[in-house]
Amino acid sequence: MLTIRSHSHDYSVETASSLANALDRVAGAEGFLYLLDSEVERIYRKEILKTIPEARQVLIKATEEQKTYEKLAPIFLELLSKGLKRDDVLVVVGGGVLQDIGCFIATVLFRGVRWEFVPTTLLAQSDSCIGSKSSINISDYKNQIGTFCPPHRVILASDVLNSLPWDEIRSGLGEVIKLQLIAGQAGFDELMADLKNLHETGGIKIISKWVGRSIAVKKPYIEQDEFDRGIRNTLNYGHTFGHAYESATRYAIPHGIAVILGMLTATYVSVRLGLVSQDHFLDLKRQLMPWFHPYETALLKARRDDVFKAIRHDKKHTGESVNCILTSGPGRMEKRSLDFAGELMPVVNEFMDKELAAQPV
Amino acid sequence: MLTIRSHSHDYSVETASSLANALDRVAGAEGFLYLLDSEVERIYRKEILKTIPEARQVLIKATEEQKTYEKLAPIFLELLSKGLKRDDVLVVVGGGVLQDIGCFIATVLFRGVRWEFVPTTLLAQSDSCIGSKSSINISDYKNQIGTFCPPHRVILASDVLNSLPWDEIRSGLGEVIKLQLIAGQAGFDELMADLKNLHETGGIKIISKWVGRSIAVKKPYIEQDEFDRGIRNTLNYGHTFGHAYESATRYAIPHGIAVILGMLTATYVSVRLGLVSQDHFLDLKRQLMPWFHPYETALLKARRDDVFKAIRHDKKHTGESVNCILTSGPGRMEKRSLDFAGELMPVVNEFMDKELAAQPV
Repeated sequence: MLTIRSHSHDYSVETASSLANALDRVAGAEGFLYLLDSEVERIYRKEILKTIPEARQVLIKATEEQKTYEKLAPIFLELLSKGLKRDDVLVVVGGGVLQDIGCFIATVLFRGVRWEFVPTTLLAQSDSCIGSKSSINISDYKNQIGTFCPPHRVILASDVLNSLPWDEIRSGLGEVIKLQLIAGQAGFDELMADLKNLHETGGIKIISKWVGRSIAVKKPYIEQDEFDRGIRNTLNYGHTFGHAYESATRYAIPHGIAVILGMLTATYVSVRLGLVSQDHFLDLKRQLMPWFHPYETALLKARRDDVFKAIRHDKKHTGESVNCILTSGPGRMEKRSLDFAGELMPVVNEFMDKELAAQPV
Repeated sequence: MLTIRSHSHDYSVETASSLANALDRVAGAEGFLYLLDSEVERIYRKEILKTIPEARQVLIKATEEQKTYEKLAPIFLELLSKGLKRDDVLVVVGGGVLQDIGCFIATVLFRGVRWEFVPTTLLAQSDSCIGSKSSINISDYKNQIGTFCPPHRVILASDVLNSLPWDEIRSGLGEVIKLQLIAGQAGFDELMADLKNLHETGGIKIISKWVGRSIAVKKPYIEQDEFDRGIRNTLNYGHTFGHAYESATRYAIPHGIAVILGMLTATYVSVRLGLVSQDHFLDLKRQLMPWFHPYETALLKARRDDVFKAIRHDKKHTGESVNCILTSGPGRMEKRSLDFAGELMPVVNEFMDKELAAQPV
């Protein structure tokens, strides 16, 4: 068990042998309500019904559209009509969308209600479950609303990873890879070696190990800078571009895979600014290819204009410069503010035309 | 200038000679947007336009209905479309409704944006402007959603009190009286003496003095117990019943006046439980009458069933007991959990039938 410090309360990250075991641990008497990803509920109905009566379940479809301010109103109302009270507990079971919705609701309902989280995707287990952020859309504005309120408890059940589609695993690995690139060369090399033999070495079991390692890397950043005003920015490595790639392709690229493409972009920009060698970039691209290919084609098909508009409109930027995390190699990240038209656009164009388009298949 | 400590940031409470002066102080360059009570804007249009161009104004009708989750979406969208950014400042000018809306939006937009507050009602100046709470309705559920996030700066302009209707002044005085009853006999006596001669002694100027005194009383409670889990509960004196009286009369009774009626009820219950003498109650009723009469008739006209339903459903209660703040005299408040059917209902009925109905006019 790990304890994470937070401005509002410390919280634990625990491991469970299975989802059934995790649910058993968060099961409560009266006063517990459950927000469940409807897909998770479908797959694990038998296990879930053992501890959670239907009357205490609120099912949610985990779509980008669902995590919209306007669409949360019926969920608030269902929780109220099912009798949730100020001193009750909201248990959230699902991936990032459920986490965003659950965190937002738990922060503002009754001015804050206790919530516990059982993440069921690799992205949520390895990355988003700690750090306390929620992101909610409003109308067509993406992620402009949110709160900082961690769950009071996180329980990681490794068996749920077995039911994930391969691309969801790859997407989760995007953040796992990012965290090891931030941590340094040794961790990254070990991860790459493990991933290379993934199918031979037990698959999910190896990945579970990297869930723990990911959280260990992320922990000090969010503890030192929970509100993301300083050193936590480092964790945005790959995200300035990654977010833009997701939205310009209308979410055809899964989040973590977009982050991989974004990290490659940031590394390419770093090469052009003389921070790191072209060889390093080529080596990184070669190693990461199994984890993003063939999603680069979705990006290449997007209107280049849309991509650049999205890069410029990412919420972290103001005016004509764009903040992004550059690198001079694993373990060495730095935040830079780059002139959009002069420094960024030509290099990103070059990256896409020369490096992505020339991708050997 | 006074500084209030809070979990998220300390903030100042300043005084200004006039609204124009206050607006001048919060006026900013680019990146300042203003949420204005449309009624305040109507009355002070000339002064407001001197510092705030129309393009940066967002006007809001200060109604109970407007502070509903669903109805905030267009306000978020207007702020976004007018270009508010993460590092910008939201200035809120108005009373309690504007504060609730402004505080909620400022807490969750971009996961928190700086906000400053110019309260324009006596209720907001003397009570709600410090303490960091917001309360938002959702559908028909009252005040079930909210946040704890104080403004970064409060500026009190005393001249705005001159434009308030007399009943709004009386409503504000309800919380002013409550705070002095909590503070103790000496403060309460001084307040009553000042109020007795209000019209002779300069009116608003005297009231401004009590705005400062109110904030001084409230400050230690909210600093020690910002999240309202302990000693801050004392400030709910009069509110268990007051809230119920407001809702059972469909908000025919202004908030602070309902609080006065609620304090009388709590005092009457205290008499029946042997905490304080009947003489004390009668004396208090006589002194407070000018500040609530004739609103007791609205309460007497309400369906008694609705009143009791509202008392039981106040969000602070669970099950069959009701928490309320009782008193053994000024400066001596205590929280009690009372059995609704056995201890509370008969006494409240008696209070209404014998004490309120028998009100000499």
